[in-house]
Amino acid sequence: MNPTGWRAYLVTQGSLSAGRDTTSIVEAAIAGGVDAVQLRDKDRSARDRYRLGRRLRDLTAAADVPLIVNDRVDLAAAIDADGVHLGQSDLPVAVARDRLGDGAILGCSTSTVAEAEAARSAGADYLGVGAVYGTDSKDVPDATNGIGTDRVAAIADAVDVPVFGIGGIDATNADAVAAAGATGAAVISAITAAEDPEAATATLREVIEDAR
Amino acid sequence: MNPTGWRAYLVTQGSLSAGRDTTSIVEAAIAGGVDAVQLRDKDRSARDRYRLGRRLRDLTAAADVPLIVNDRVDLAAAIDADGVHLGQSDLPVAVARDRLGDGAILGCSTSTVAEAEAARSAGADYLGVGAVYGTDSKDVPDATNGIGTDRVAAIADAVDVPVFGIGGIDATNADAVAAAGATGAAVISAITAAEDPEAATATLREVIEDAR
Repeated sequence: MNPTGWRAYLVTQGSLSAGRDTTSIVEAAIAGGVDAVQLRDKDRSARDRYRLGRRLRDLTAAADVPLIVNDRVDLAAAIDADGVHLGQSDLPVAVARDRLGDGAILGCSTSTVAEAEAARSAGADYLGVGAVYGTDSKDVPDATNGIGTDRVAAIADAVDVPVFGIGGIDATNADAVAAAGATGAAVISAITAAEDPEAATATLREVIEDAR
Repeated sequence: MNPTGWRAYLVTQGSLSAGRDTTSIVEAAIAGGVDAVQLRDKDRSARDRYRLGRRLRDLTAAADVPLIVNDRVDLAAAIDADGVHLGQSDLPVAVARDRLGDGAILGCSTSTVAEAEAARSAGADYLGVGAVYGTDSKDVPDATNGIGTDRVAAIADAVDVPVFGIGGIDATNADAVAAAGATGAAVISAITAAEDPEAATATLREVIEDAR
């Protein structure tokens, strides 16, 4: 449950799932040992995410895998998720804490040391850091150019909460992200678009664990 | 406070406010006697709407004008708004009720008698009905073709809560909407784009009041 133990953190995006539905991707990721799941699917309506979120809550609860909701504090509360992940233009971390309470896991997207320190001060329990390698996808939040592993290291050194690299990370480069001090990696396509999402999850976990 | 007394219901949209900021539009509408304000501004980030919403809450509270938030239950709670307005693809009305409690004012966008009856059964306190006249703007939610005043009358007959026409309504046609049984009119451009938003609000109220 605690983010300190997360290695492979799946962020869902149905439009990047090679025609498969998000539910089946999450089932495969759980079978592969995923440590946490974030309901993102930002191109869907709140109503659709609510329906999807209830299914994901059932699946993740049965497997004792934390479920985090991107952006929407109300949706997180409505589906009894474990927490919420907030970008720099979402509701402030402190507001989410007020609404969800001390037991909620709050994550925040950051790309600089200053943003990271501010998010930590506001009460974030973990940070998403990126985009580490940049991406040609438009589906990585809050950054488009890669910040590199040196920045990951600087942020990991600056804060006392787990940091997760995000953006362009897969099993071929996750070792460098972990070696830089990241607790794990948050990925979309490396799992959602993989031919075998279960195997991709297991491999990603292993690469990160070995590099730490 | 109670929607049964609302005649002119302003829905904010900075991008349709002729270069003026939403705060100044709301100040003018309050001076003109607006009965309720909905924070919409859907093109802004949640963070921006939170900042704007706190200012609007101060203004509306000082004038004893209800403030409703479009779509986001979390934002409504965070700024201590009086309620939330939900579209057909937003979180369900019953979920909003669970989060905000019995004292919250919950509105729902509907365009058919079936949707209206479902929203009422789910606990909506009032209904937005439209788009009544259609619009060439893309900023009217959940409908693009005008449903006409006959549909407004059918919905007003079918439910025991206030209905507000929305979509293409201004002081030149609001009388027909009120005569069809609407409690009032929810408008964006008729106030936000008016040369004199205060006068436009006062005139709209008067037209509706006279036609009832």
